[in-house]
Amino acid sequence: MSPAPAERADHAGPAESAGPAEPADHAGIEEPADLAWLGAHAAARLPREVQLHAGGPLAGTVGAEVERLRDLAEGTAGTLRLYDLPAARDAGIEAAVLEELAAAGPEAYALRVEGEHLCVIAGGDRGLLHGFYAVVLGQATAVVHTTDAADATDSTDSTTGTGSTAGWTLRAPAQAIRMLDHWDNMTVHSVMGQVERGYAGGSLFYEDGELREDLTRVEQYARLLASIGINRVSLNNVNVHAREATLLTSRLNQVARLAEVFRGQGISVHLAVSFASPILLGGLTTSDPLDAEVQDWWAATAEAVYAAIPDFGGFVVKADSEGQPGPFAYGRDHTDGANLLARALAPHGGEVFWRAFVYDHHQDWRDRSTDRARAAHDHFAPLDGTFDDNVIVQVKHGPLDFQVREAVSPVIGAMPRTRLAVELQITQEYTGQQKHLCYLAPWWSENLRFPFGNSDPAAAEASAPTVAQIVAGTAERPGGVVAVSNVGADAFWTGHPLAQANLFALGRLAWDPDLSPQQILEEWIGATFGADPLVAEVLEDLLGESWQLYESYTAPLGVGFMVRPGHHYGPDVDGYEYTPWGTYHFADRDGLGVDRTVATGTGFAGLFPEPWASLYESPQTCPDELLLFFHHVPYTHRLHSGKTVIQHIYDSRADGYERVLQLRPRWQELEGRVPTALHERVTALLHEQERSAEEWRDQLRTYFFRASGIPDESGRPIH
Amino acid sequence: MSPAPAERADHAGPAESAGPAEPADHAGIEEPADLAWLGAHAAARLPREVQLHAGGPLAGTVGAEVERLRDLAEGTAGTLRLYDLPAARDAGIEAAVLEELAAAGPEAYALRVEGEHLCVIAGGDRGLLHGFYAVVLGQATAVVHTTDAADATDSTDSTTGTGSTAGWTLRAPAQAIRMLDHWDNMTVHSVMGQVERGYAGGSLFYEDGELREDLTRVEQYARLLASIGINRVSLNNVNVHAREATLLTSRLNQVARLAEVFRGQGISVHLAVSFASPILLGGLTTSDPLDAEVQDWWAATAEAVYAAIPDFGGFVVKADSEGQPGPFAYGRDHTDGANLLARALAPHGGEVFWRAFVYDHHQDWRDRSTDRARAAHDHFAPLDGTFDDNVIVQVKHGPLDFQVREAVSPVIGAMPRTRLAVELQITQEYTGQQKHLCYLAPWWSENLRFPFGNSDPAAAEASAPTVAQIVAGTAERPGGVVAVSNVGADAFWTGHPLAQANLFALGRLAWDPDLSPQQILEEWIGATFGADPLVAEVLEDLLGESWQLYESYTAPLGVGFMVRPGHHYGPDVDGYEYTPWGTYHFADRDGLGVDRTVATGTGFAGLFPEPWASLYESPQTCPDELLLFFHHVPYTHRLHSGKTVIQHIYDSRADGYERVLQLRPRWQELEGRVPTALHERVTALLHEQERSAEEWRDQLRTYFFRASGIPDESGRPIH
Repeated sequence: MSPAPAERADHAGPAESAGPAEPADHAGIEEPADLAWLGAHAAARLPREVQLHAGGPLAGTVGAEVERLRDLAEGTAGTLRLYDLPAARDAGIEAAVLEELAAAGPEAYALRVEGEHLCVIAGGDRGLLHGFYAVVLGQATAVVHTTDAADATDSTDSTTGTGSTAGWTLRAPAQAIRMLDHWDNMTVHSVMGQVERGYAGGSLFYEDGELREDLTRVEQYARLLASIGINRVSLNNVNVHAREATLLTSRLNQVARLAEVFRGQGISVHLAVSFASPILLGGLTTSDPLDAEVQDWWAATAEAVYAAIPDFGGFVVKADSEGQPGPFAYGRDHTDGANLLARALAPHGGEVFWRAFVYDHHQDWRDRSTDRARAAHDHFAPLDGTFDDNVIVQVKHGPLDFQVREAVSPVIGAMPRTRLAVELQITQEYTGQQKHLCYLAPWWSENLRFPFGNSDPAAAEASAPTVAQIVAGTAERPGGVVAVSNVGADAFWTGHPLAQANLFALGRLAWDPDLSPQQILEEWIGATFGADPLVAEVLEDLLGESWQLYESYTAPLGVGFMVRPGHHYGPDVDGYEYTPWGTYHFADRDGLGVDRTVATGTGFAGLFPEPWASLYESPQTCPDELLLFFHHVPYTHRLHSGKTVIQHIYDSRADGYERVLQLRPRWQELEGRVPTALHERVTALLHEQERSAEEWRDQLRTYFFRASGIPDESGRPIH
Repeated sequence: MSPAPAERADHAGPAESAGPAEPADHAGIEEPADLAWLGAHAAARLPREVQLHAGGPLAGTVGAEVERLRDLAEGTAGTLRLYDLPAARDAGIEAAVLEELAAAGPEAYALRVEGEHLCVIAGGDRGLLHGFYAVVLGQATAVVHTTDAADATDSTDSTTGTGSTAGWTLRAPAQAIRMLDHWDNMTVHSVMGQVERGYAGGSLFYEDGELREDLTRVEQYARLLASIGINRVSLNNVNVHAREATLLTSRLNQVARLAEVFRGQGISVHLAVSFASPILLGGLTTSDPLDAEVQDWWAATAEAVYAAIPDFGGFVVKADSEGQPGPFAYGRDHTDGANLLARALAPHGGEVFWRAFVYDHHQDWRDRSTDRARAAHDHFAPLDGTFDDNVIVQVKHGPLDFQVREAVSPVIGAMPRTRLAVELQITQEYTGQQKHLCYLAPWWSENLRFPFGNSDPAAAEASAPTVAQIVAGTAERPGGVVAVSNVGADAFWTGHPLAQANLFALGRLAWDPDLSPQQILEEWIGATFGADPLVAEVLEDLLGESWQLYESYTAPLGVGFMVRPGHHYGPDVDGYEYTPWGTYHFADRDGLGVDRTVATGTGFAGLFPEPWASLYESPQTCPDELLLFFHHVPYTHRLHSGKTVIQHIYDSRADGYERVLQLRPRWQELEGRVPTALHERVTALLHEQERSAEEWRDQLRTYFFRASGIPDESGRPIH
């Protein structure tokens, strides 16, 4: 890392090589693909001259990145001027902008287009990085557009056309917390591989049970994350196994090495810790949160962590869930558990991410009254207001488990006095495992923009806040977005090269939940593949509605699962039907679906505020796509679409498969226009998607025909 | 191993300690349990005085065993006199007996009760061991009984009451090949553990990727096997992984060490080898059986094996099956493959066990015309008569895969000019995994005694030979019985202590397929637990019909499977329904079963000779227990039992579970009468059997109620 103060401003100038660099030999993968959206096409967006007027440590990072990009492409005409606040003041930039920026916090930045020059002012050290990457990723283009448009509605861009701030666009993140959780283990722990639910090879961090010696790719990864605004990373699986538990103590030096790498990009690191650490690591006989020795152990442990990593972010905890230890063992509740850790971290400014994914995974499938969808609400809603200020309750966006379709988690609307983070899953556990195309931004966007309402009567008059607004919290008690990473040691980072779009989109949506999925996709395509219009057209075709396509041939109408147990890939309608996991569809010869109504079912629908509770309660008003999530209906039930449920099952799976068959020929058009290795990888995966989609089609159509006996009106074959 | 010549004859005499030895501390397991049926109760059967008049190397083994047993119990009054043929001649024993013995081969022995004395003459070195163990295991008692009974029909006991051979019982094995296949890997290779389909801990042979240093337990194991007449053992999994492949070459010294241990008990060792060994181990580019280099490699390799292990038994091969390499890759057939290895082994007297378990495990579940049950017949029957003399084709007893109920494999009747071995499975893959009680002797007995008929028209007039008679072959071209072991490193050898009965029964049935399962059970109980009548009564109650009980609550009426994919434990009705494995039930809302008729189905029924082909072809004559194996019928089809299929499914599972609930109280009666650790282990496993049987009951009843909509007439609850 070069120290790179303001003197580096004159570094710029025409690069010696125009166009992409010579392909590097990295497992047959060319350099631009390897660097994802920070390759040659991003480099081509960087103005030839960069003037860096900033004194903070991340200025060096910007300088180094300028240098690296300069080696990849010549860049545009014009100049990029980057200022931190003091430098901007010295340069005589309008005070009103600087005041606005200072108020918006250290991650904010302001942008102004001045002819062919760009000017960026950072509110703080991290803001400098955000502003710089915004230019490289083409977000400056949007600024030009925004400043031209009188009706600009972008919620986080504040463009003032008056007086001293004329032409400046102020950008600040909507979510203070924009975090990735890595579910990496240090060794191959299960048949799922080293990364739990990872579909991109082994861990980027660990190899053979220890931190990798060579962290070059982690440095690249940190740069990618910083470029999309991620500011926190958790470094290990929330299911904390014995070896990984020691990252907190005897292997802390390995965490410190990773922290140094991420610090260089303005990202703080966190550890998933075992609630039983005092026993596992401390030699105590208990982990009881009310035990003084336990409290002392955590305090001393936190102190040691901060001695090694002064900017350590905090702990992530999965407690009393799926076999992980927790406070229940001692008759304590989750507040006791979370506050125990929070008090150890508080003196150092650390925070606890306490997951609300708590349910009984030894459920009796015979018992239709217990509902896993209720579990997080039942456990956590009563605890609202009892958590310490540095506890963030981390809630999965849906009440089940990252299905292709499910309701929003009512927990998010039920804890107004608690700092919350919504947890999304970039890794495609239930959405095709990075073998199927599934651009998840539309699904996340739908969740984040869900107008929740507020069950607090005092707030009844306020307009219904969205999930994103709720979790954003306040400046004093902010929350945010946490997502499970889809990145591994694979040369393409995400296994499926096009799954990089999901990583990119997650960062962008966490920064601004009102960005449209389409806009984000365009940004990603441009930065990754450049300006070839055919590439953009084909990729938008392939990815734009790929989530809806995946939904169309998998579990129908919000009922969820129907996957092979264990690995969760491919269809198995009854796979989880008679298991203890609480994930049922209750299909019989007459109908299917889960009755979650208040009137006759588990009552889950009633956990929502109005208008949702009433809307979900009735099959007449329940949206089609969630019908089987909330209702058990006959196969002949007619959807709002006009089709019966059974005909929808038949048609949607057959049509979906037909649409999948159109993907590969479309992709074929890009041969020679995208890197060869990338093209081949995607082609191979599209073959697999076809095979798998056919299985989904045939198994579901056959299963439901065998069950219902009702012929497919379309006459298409059933086996 | 002491050399122990005839001088040791006077070794005997009253032991210093009467009754069982002090329990040894072996993982909390007492010595008698640990030594299974060769513990104190067997020792108590040994006459106090043993006179050993024999010169072969196994005489030393007998001497050592006498010594060991003498330490455990005092023994009976009287004398045991053991002679080899020369010694018997010297002692002036009737020449007619000796002639008969000599003709019966080296494994035969003759027994005579002379008051309270026992006299055993061995036809050869191995016969000596068999005769000795027959005494210890109480089979001499049967002799007394047989010589008394004029109508004795035991097919292998030849008792002559006339002239010079008066009172002698001649015993020779019905099957020349009595072999155990171990499916042990050297390391933990999969989620199934170290031993593929092993339910008794890790491997007895290997630990951490190498042969164990301490082979004490292997010595004990060899002794147990010898006592039940096993004369061959294969030492590794037929799915040969990379490390295990090297047992043939670079790790051959480890095989030699095991061979030495087994040799001490008259047992020869075999290796499962990879057909791709010339590539994997020899560095060749092909394994083509017609390639001269490949032939040379196998010849040289076999020579090296025999240089190290002169009495090496031969190779076991799983080829072109479930992903294992084979001759198909080179456009060759299984004769080419088997004869390749046979010719390498022939100069050294070795043999090839070539498995007929060959089928397409990438079957399309949509395709109802392909039938895995046909596969072995389709592949092998046309090859009859083409195999070299030292090839034994090893055929699973049923056409599918060791189900609790299936038809007999028609391959066994279709290869009269081929040496055959029938393959049984002691390890309880599909029959409760040594967690459920399942005494398999009745099932094996039914298979071995199946009166096959003979599809060879020239033999039409002969009375229908049984499976056992067919595989026994001729003296010149003998076949036999091979079984997959259920033994591992568990202190009780077989995980479930009562699963030892299966190991015992396998040996006994291979020796004499006409022994009744009940008689074998009594033998095992007596040798293992002694003469306590309550112990015998309870164990006969628990085990006697435990296979039928297991069948009653699992997959109904011969349809098979319905188990959790992968590990195969516990119910999952649709678990294999939509998979490539060829194991389907085709249940829909109207009925279930596989149509294997000639008229409308896969034609499998027609692969049998008459009367079986016609009997199986019609649902009217097909036995109830195989109905769904051969026919797809409506739920309302009425069985010979008078019940409809659906009511049978409901009743049998509910009744079966009720019977399972009676097991534990019954077992409780034996507390204090059997070793404590053994009692506790069985109690814990009976709890598990109850839990699992309840799952079977509820999942199957619920699944078929959901499918059929037909209420259970008995009114018992369905979920």
